[in-house]
Parts: sequence; C-alpha cells; structure tokens
Amino acid sequence: MKTYLTCPRCGGKVASYRNPFPTVDAIIEREDGGIVLIRRKNPPYGWALPGGFVDYGESLEAAVKREALEETGLRITLRYQLGAYSDPARDPRWHTISVVFVARGEGVPKASDDAAEVGVFYQGGFPDHLAFDHETILRDYFRRCGERS
Amino acid sequence: MKTYLTCPRCGGKVASYRNPFPTVDAIIEREDGGIVLIRRKNPPYGWALPGGFVDYGESLEAAVKREALEETGLRITLRYQLGAYSDPARDPRWHTISVVFVARGEGVPKASDDAAEVGVFYQGGFPDHLAFDHETILRDYFRRCGERS
Repeated sequence: MKTYLTCPRCGGKVASYRNPFPTVDAIIEREDGGIVLIRRKNPPYGWALPGGFVDYGESLEAAVKREALEETGLRITLRYQLGAYSDPARDPRWHTISVVFVARGEGVPKASDDAAEVGVFYQGGFPDHLAFDHETILRDYFRRCGERS
Repeated sequence: MKTYLTCPRCGGKVASYRNPFPTVDAIIEREDGGIVLIRRKNPPYGWALPGGFVDYGESLEAAVKREALEETGLRITLRYQLGAYSDPARDPRWHTISVVFVARGEGVPKASDDAAEVGVFYQGGFPDHLAFDHETILRDYFRRCGERS
C-alpha cells in the first residue's frame, strides 16, 4: 500500500510503500501445564501472549526468543509453530501478521520491557479478555493439544 | 531497520523503517499427486512454488489464493499451513517471511503474470534447482506427507 511520509527539510510528500508488519507470539508452557501471559504496559491494554515485532534481518525463531526474554525474563526452547494469524483487524493499530510458536520456559518469570505484570494461567482460568486475537490463538492451541493427546 | 528515502522535491533524506516483507507460497496438489510449479519471469530465475507479496490489509489466505490465480490460473482450495520460513538469506534481494499453504487445484494450469511457464512435477522428478528455499519447503512437505500416511 502506498503511503506518504513528510520530508523534515522541505515538508514535501515522499511516497513510501507499506506492507503488513511481521510479528511473533509465544505460548510458553510450564511443566505444570500453565501458560505464561503478560499484562501490557502499552495500548491495547490487557493480558496477552508475550511477543512483538520481527526485526529486518532477524528470523522468526530469533525474534520470538528475544521477545520472550525481554518481556518475561525466560529463555525459551521452541517446540513447534502453531500457525500464522493475519486478519487485518487483529491489531487495532495496524495490520500485523503473527507467527505463533509453542515453547517451553522454566524458571521464575519476571515482567520487563513492554510487560507491566507477568502471570501463569491455566486452562479454564484465563483472564476474561485477552488483547488482539489471543483468545482465538489459545483456543486453537488447546484444541490441537486435545488432538495430540 | 532504519533506512532513508530521498525527497523528490528537495533531495533531503527522509527516515523510514523497514520490516521484513510478508509473502506467501502455495504447494498446489493435483489429484494424481503432482505439484504445480512456475518458471519465474523475473530474478531470481528458475522453477519455484507460485507465490508473492501480501498486500497491506489482505489476509494470508486471500493473498495465497490471489497469487495462485494470477500465476497459474487455478482457483485453489486451502488445506493447511505447512509453516513459516524466515531465514534472512532465503531471498537474495531482501528479507522476506513466507507462510506456505498446502492447497488443492484442479483444472488446466496456465502461466501468467510473473510466471513464464507452468508445469506439474512429481516426487523424485522435480527440477534440479528451485528458486529461494523452495527445495527445503518441498522436503518438509514430503516428510510431513510421509508422517501422515
């Protein structure tokens, strides 16, 4: 999509092309079956899976490990990709495409960076509303767990 | 990643941010087990899976159906996501992140748009070198087919 930036020197319009923004999210499993969520410091507020933007030149795997460490303090081990979520309305701010990884993360989680709080939640006991499409993602995750067991 | 555009009015530098580019690719299955490939009209040349860039505001599912139709003339039915491929070196031109879909497509394929030719190939008889990381993707696909059968 064509968008326009403003030249800081002369105020002229400079054409630029905008693509959807690649992001990652992590479903971090604990040994006892709990899942790690963070409470967001920035809008959209609420509880969410840890995650964020993929940098240019960074693989998805590197990005999701970096984001998990930044937001929860946990070094995660990736298990598998759950899938990619791309509904243009999934983020109220702009169009993001998130690849979701299922991972393991032991140790004590500690909120930092974009996370105001971090918590571990269990199936049937998740917060009422999650940010973005993270309820859909967790529903897909638990359905797949059911199929595998 | 911060990059700079040039203002067409004054020649000034205008800061812009670059993200990896989201793309899609389709593994189009035929009833007889063949897979549809296209020969690329533009660099990097060679045979490849049909695919291309995701537009801003377009879902991955819509993008892969559009690209398949544009390049092969086939209206495809999506089966499942194979996975997302994000090695920064997978495309020699820039950093792309491709979500790969497995789909069905009947009827007679016809090359158009970015495709110079279209062909159907069978396991053990693919062209020697495919563009991008499409050999890796097809290896992953056939391994998964083996696990499922």
